[in-house]
Formats: sequence, C-alpha cells, structure tokens
Amino acid sequence: MNPPCPLDNVRVVLSYPSHPGNIGAAARAMKTMGLKSRYLVKPKSFPDKEAETRAAGAWDVLNNTRVCENLDDALSGVTLAAAVTARRRDLSHDIFDARQGAKKLLDQARQLPVALVFGTEMSGLTSEEVSKCQFIVHIPANPAYSSLNLASAVQVMTYELRMALPNVGDLPPSLGTLASLDEIELFYCHFEKTMINCGFLDPENPKLLMRRIRRLYSRTTLEKEEVSILRGILNSFEKHT
Amino acid sequence: MNPPCPLDNVRVVLSYPSHPGNIGAAARAMKTMGLKSRYLVKPKSFPDKEAETRAAGAWDVLNNTRVCENLDDALSGVTLAAAVTARRRDLSHDIFDARQGAKKLLDQARQLPVALVFGTEMSGLTSEEVSKCQFIVHIPANPAYSSLNLASAVQVMTYELRMALPNVGDLPPSLGTLASLDEIELFYCHFEKTMINCGFLDPENPKLLMRRIRRLYSRTTLEKEEVSILRGILNSFEKHT
Repeated sequence: MNPPCPLDNVRVVLSYPSHPGNIGAAARAMKTMGLKSRYLVKPKSFPDKEAETRAAGAWDVLNNTRVCENLDDALSGVTLAAAVTARRRDLSHDIFDARQGAKKLLDQARQLPVALVFGTEMSGLTSEEVSKCQFIVHIPANPAYSSLNLASAVQVMTYELRMALPNVGDLPPSLGTLASLDEIELFYCHFEKTMINCGFLDPENPKLLMRRIRRLYSRTTLEKEEVSILRGILNSFEKHT
Repeated sequence: MNPPCPLDNVRVVLSYPSHPGNIGAAARAMKTMGLKSRYLVKPKSFPDKEAETRAAGAWDVLNNTRVCENLDDALSGVTLAAAVTARRRDLSHDIFDARQGAKKLLDQARQLPVALVFGTEMSGLTSEEVSKCQFIVHIPANPAYSSLNLASAVQVMTYELRMALPNVGDLPPSLGTLASLDEIELFYCHFEKTMINCGFLDPENPKLLMRRIRRLYSRTTLEKEEVSILRGILNSFEKHT
C-alpha cells in the first residue's frame, strides 16, 4: 500500500469567493497538482453551472467541496493555516514567499492537516481572517500590478506544494546513450579528413576550423547514434569527392 | 538609468488560442509577473470583449500583442524557444521542469530575446511546432490529470521566470553572438537539401533524420559564426555533388 500523500492533508479554503468561474477554475488548478480537499466560506453562488464548466472535469474536487458559514468552521481540525495575501499588514505575522510557505505547510502536512486560505476577489483577506492564520504567504509579483486572479493564485500555490514533494521536478534527462570520448575523437578525425578532401580545409593553413567544430559539438554531449549519423553523412560525401 | 530587465526579453507565444477569455487571463498573468511582450498565432478571436474583461486592466499587454500567421513569424528574432507541453514525445528534445526551464530561458534573456511557446487549448503543441523550439518545458502535475488551463500554465511559467530573476552580483555568461531562429531554420533547409542531393536522405522515405539533426543542434544554442561555417561546409559539398 502506498503511504498517504501529504497533499491529501492540505485543504484549500476560499473565503467569500464571488465568481463561480473562479470556484471552478480553482478546482481544476487543485486537481492538476493533486489536491482534493476544499472548503468555501459563504460563496456567492455554489453549486453553479459556470463553476462546472470552468472545472473542466475536476468533478471530484467539486464534489469534495464543503460550504461553511465562517472561517472558523472551514479551519476546523486544521493545525496550521497560511493566509495568502499580497497586501502588507500593519501588525503582521511572519511572511514567507510562495516557495518557502509551501515547504513549511508541506512539512507539517506529512503528519497533520493544514490549510491554505485565499480571500475574496476584490479585496482579499480581511485583517480578522488573517489573524486566524499562523503565517502569511506572499506570491512574488510585479509591484506595480500584483493582483493575481484567484484561480491563478491557487494554481501557483498548489504548484509550489507539488514541487515541495520529494522527487518532483527531478525529471530524467531525455538522453540516449552518450558517445565515448574515443568515438568522438574518431568523428573529429573523420570530419577533418573529409573537409580536406572536399577542399573546405587547407591542411597548410587550417586556421581555427577544427577548434571551432570541437567547441560546437562539445556543447551538445553527443550521443552514440548521433555520432554514427554524422559519420554516415561524411561517408556519403566522400563517395562524391 | 536602470539596466533593462531580462523579463523584457521574454516573449510569450500562444499558438492557435481558441478562447478569448484565456487570451485575456494570460495577459493578466503576464502582467502580474512583469512580462510585456506577447505574440498570438492565428487566434480564433482577437481583439475580443471577453479577452478585455479577463485581462482585468492589463491593457499594456493586450496592446503589446502581435498577431502572426504562423509560428515562424512569432519566433522571428528569437534566439532560444521553449515549448511548454505536458505530453511525452517520441523522439524528444531535452526536457526541463518549469523551474529549470525558466532559469535556462532567463539566463539567455539577460542578453538576447527568448520565447516561451504554448499550444492550443484542446491538444497543445503539434510535433512540428515543438520541433521549432530548442527544448521542452514540463510543468510537474498530477499524472492522472495534467491538463492545466492555458492561462494557469502561463501564470506558473511567468511566476517561475520572476522567481529566477538574478540577485545583484550574478554575472551574465559570456556568449558569442547567437544565431536567430530564422538563421537556424535556413541552415536546416540548406542541410536537408544537401543531404538529398548527396543521396544520404531519400525524400520519399526521410525517416527521422531531420528531427534528429534538429535535436542535436538544438542543444548547442548555435552562434551566428557557427551557422555560417556549417553552411560554408554544405556549399563546399554541393560543389562536388
């Protein structure tokens, strides 16, 4: 049996969301990053046709959405809550950026339920709502225009939560079997010989050609099959010269 | 005077976007992260009222949007292009995750124009479109449901670009003058023609040769002078065939 995923312990809370489209788009954003649990505080309209459209098949998140009367109810059972907000607060909590905040939440989510709290579209979280959270998360943004769409903010934060999972992001490089250095040297010899035979390289006055060619291919980390294609091309030229 | 910001050198390209809402939401996403330059390839509808609504005040990005007939035009002048795609490709380019890919693009954007290319909503980028880019960027996602909304994908990538902005003191790498993608395309055409003339490539049965060649050279970020050496070699061969 697989151990439970820490993302299952992360609850997304939307407080007073006013556009059903954002509720749907946020469900889709959550699902793309593997989150399931969602609480809405006093949504203007939910369930709603537009939310269903914009959810684009994230039915399980829509069905897993609980509607609450207030933020206290939405945070019931949670051990750590982060308030996502762009505004500076007078008497502020600790502030972390999106990446640090996601790591902090995920650390705790390995064992206990945590929450990520987003405010209403036009004005964000109230000071009272922020005061019910333990720290503030700030998504780095253009200081002259920092207002992310609600679902976009959910997308960025859930993306950072997923990136904070161990081993996510370590993609295997898509390389074939690399050529050995001897094979590459043989290719350079072959290349040089062909250049001389076709008259492109004057052995009495070689200038920097081969150094430039070496520099170019050194940057590629050539694969075995690529060396063999390149040498095949050289052979084909030699038949004509 | 402030030095130019590398984000000004990053062009967002949306190929065949079908929903005007996404075009608007992507403009907003770009602006929140400080990006300005955008190209659309054959949008279904633009300008459009819904795009304006969803742009939520990101007028400068909307006004800075150029509409192109094809991807080549949208990539004109660009030196490095990343294809954002969730699908695995048979014979793929190098693949980077969103964070690594953003760093790679931003490194180059310190000196030269680069592009981030997104495909149409339903089916993403075609293989032909991907082949015009130098590497693939994959946004880590739930394997069972990896389809991010287009504007959400733009939000995540532009967020990672902003997060990759260097701190003061990071020196730019010393690059030769890089070839533009148009110059590289002309090289590939020349290469293919020469391969056909010398009999190495059968146009009736081309197999994967040109895709393999593109993949090989995509990894090098070719310089202008290197392209001119390679084309000189091709010219020299042609004299003999």
